[in-house]
Amino acid sequence: MKKKKPTSFCEIPSEENPAAAGVNKDAFYRHKGNFSWTGVTDQPYKTAGTEWSDVIRRVLIGAHGETTRFHVRYFEIAPGGRSSLEQHRHEHVVICVRGEGLMLSGKRRRKLKFMDTAYIAPGSVHRLSNPLEEPFGFLCIVNSRRDRPKIAGTPKS
Amino acid sequence: MKKKKPTSFCEIPSEENPAAAGVNKDAFYRHKGNFSWTGVTDQPYKTAGTEWSDVIRRVLIGAHGETTRFHVRYFEIAPGGRSSLEQHRHEHVVICVRGEGLMLSGKRRRKLKFMDTAYIAPGSVHRLSNPLEEPFGFLCIVNSRRDRPKIAGTPKS
Repeated sequence: MKKKKPTSFCEIPSEENPAAAGVNKDAFYRHKGNFSWTGVTDQPYKTAGTEWSDVIRRVLIGAHGETTRFHVRYFEIAPGGRSSLEQHRHEHVVICVRGEGLMLSGKRRRKLKFMDTAYIAPGSVHRLSNPLEEPFGFLCIVNSRRDRPKIAGTPKS
Repeated sequence: MKKKKPTSFCEIPSEENPAAAGVNKDAFYRHKGNFSWTGVTDQPYKTAGTEWSDVIRRVLIGAHGETTRFHVRYFEIAPGGRSSLEQHRHEHVVICVRGEGLMLSGKRRRKLKFMDTAYIAPGSVHRLSNPLEEPFGFLCIVNSRRDRPKIAGTPKS
């Protein structure tokens, strides 16, 4: 039986980059409050595995056929939740917009508060987590063309 | 005598994309409050012309040799200020993070509040302005390789 690979925190679903869509017009996503936007749906991760937990994703830019060379996503980690510990060639930019959280990047562990901005270089092992009582939300901007993340520390199957 | 071209709101200074720098490591820009960050300096526009006024720019990602295919900038428009009315092939993503303002994009005029997110498609004539009493700040994300903006409505010289 083929072993299922662990689901990554920032894996790219096929619908995120519909190159064939060809839609490229002005768009507006009004913030409805509570870090939800009109026209932007939740993309919850499958809850398989123990690599990550309690994470939601909302794709602001990249799910509607835009030709940008980047995608903008909002991630929110519930109290006690965390992203997978992962590594990949593509870069991340993380900007905290809600609550506070922790970010491990390389060997550094930092607290992230409102508007703190991090650049996670190619190859840096990283994880975001929320040890606090309030939701921790951040914008995460990535290149539209990028490699698939690898779960760091997972044994090869 | 050669006529000086009007200075654009989102013109690319050479230091914003130092391809030769080759620096590509983890970085952290702590928010000091008041939408200023450690390690990020103001890049005020020259005050020539009447196309724009009272705009400051802080380049969060793109000024330190990152290889991202996008740049992230914070712009702030003072009360009564505005960006130039401009048009270009490259796309903009605008996310309001401070105060409120107005955005003209194509034929639509909209109010922007906290976390409202706009995608300005290639070729859309656009302008941002601040008719209110508080600063209007927003993140503006663009492709790292992009064409130079043109001031819309300026006669050819």
